[in-house]
Amino acid sequence: MPNPTAAMLVIGDEILSGRTRDSNMHFLAGELTKHGIDLKEARFVSDDAEAIETAVKALSQAYDHVFTSGGIGPTHDDITADAIAHAFGVGIGIREDARALLEAHYEKTGLELNAARLRMARIPDVATLIENPVSTAPGFTLGNVHVMAGVPVVFQAMVASVLPTLTGGAPLLSQTLRVERGEGDIAETLSLLAEAFDDLSIGCYPFQVNGVFGANVVVRGTDGARIDAAITRLAKELGV
Amino acid sequence: MPNPTAAMLVIGDEILSGRTRDSNMHFLAGELTKHGIDLKEARFVSDDAEAIETAVKALSQAYDHVFTSGGIGPTHDDITADAIAHAFGVGIGIREDARALLEAHYEKTGLELNAARLRMARIPDVATLIENPVSTAPGFTLGNVHVMAGVPVVFQAMVASVLPTLTGGAPLLSQTLRVERGEGDIAETLSLLAEAFDDLSIGCYPFQVNGVFGANVVVRGTDGARIDAAITRLAKELGV
Repeated sequence: MPNPTAAMLVIGDEILSGRTRDSNMHFLAGELTKHGIDLKEARFVSDDAEAIETAVKALSQAYDHVFTSGGIGPTHDDITADAIAHAFGVGIGIREDARALLEAHYEKTGLELNAARLRMARIPDVATLIENPVSTAPGFTLGNVHVMAGVPVVFQAMVASVLPTLTGGAPLLSQTLRVERGEGDIAETLSLLAEAFDDLSIGCYPFQVNGVFGANVVVRGTDGARIDAAITRLAKELGV
Repeated sequence: MPNPTAAMLVIGDEILSGRTRDSNMHFLAGELTKHGIDLKEARFVSDDAEAIETAVKALSQAYDHVFTSGGIGPTHDDITADAIAHAFGVGIGIREDARALLEAHYEKTGLELNAARLRMARIPDVATLIENPVSTAPGFTLGNVHVMAGVPVVFQAMVASVLPTLTGGAPLLSQTLRVERGEGDIAETLSLLAEAFDDLSIGCYPFQVNGVFGANVVVRGTDGARIDAAITRLAKELGV
């Protein structure tokens, strides 16, 4: 059975303007790979309701899971929850379960649960909450869409909350062979290898560090023995 | 007149599998911002011809410019040029101008211009070349799509080649106010500010470093005086 598929949707002007370099996609990619879910696509859009809705609908239809990051805080530019509820035609309002979490949290910290903070309890009607052990305000899952915070430490904690609830497949395994020759010298060998092992994915990534140049050949797949066989053959053919 | 719009398409299994963390999008975002071109969307797809074609067609129609990175090297997994030619129904083959560049380069370096390396001279018929001062093998522009290498140092050099040829708009300016208070405390003030300055984009990005928590408020726009006015009002209202 093929692995479940996934897409990621990163929401935020700060990333598209170049102010902030996203790290959530790279983190999620690694976690999904370990969990046997294949990340097939990622999209980055700005804090714009129509852009969010269009993207989340397209991705939700095309893949088994969609993971979003960003736009669920207390400020005016945090519009993700409303946009996603609207995209799926679901009602949204202050949810009592989310409010209770926030009340307990702010009582402990001595901060006021004002109107802005209460916005973080706006959750689509039929969604289930995603636990946030870092700062309490929850994410949520609506259908196959998992909506999480953009702050990396919170995003990572939410991924850790939601991933064990999802059925994974075979983890994607990989082995890398470092070859100190130009890509162009090994390309034909790789091409024949890719034909012989068409159940594996074989990538070639050139590097140039301190005057040494070469390529890392990465063989990926779910069958460790096949990957071993491909790497062994490649090392022999290239005399590495 | 509004600024030209742009999208980016990042191509490569190595990024979606979590092996490599992309840096080209963050670099391009910063360069476009300086050049007055608004990056509206980015997509990441794997080394899959159909995925590349679908994405590049959608983005080419929706935005003034599309910038791609990845998949134009000499190995079997480098399929970007062919996929993009196919997407636009344009022929592709070894182009003599590109071949001449590679011949001169490999003669100088003493490496063989073999069949694999010659693949890097496969350029769509009506495309114009993008200069690559780092490693010679060119990128290309086809219509409004600018196709560039994935290796960051080469990607950056190609962006430097192509960007001056594109008409930019007003550079996006920004100022940041650091506020050592929780987002929830300043959210209402920000919301009113965003209403009063609806020609500007006002974002709020929480941080927590060494026990100090707060938020960076970023005001973006093309009119420096308006940004000044917004930041001044905000600082006064928050007593910063």
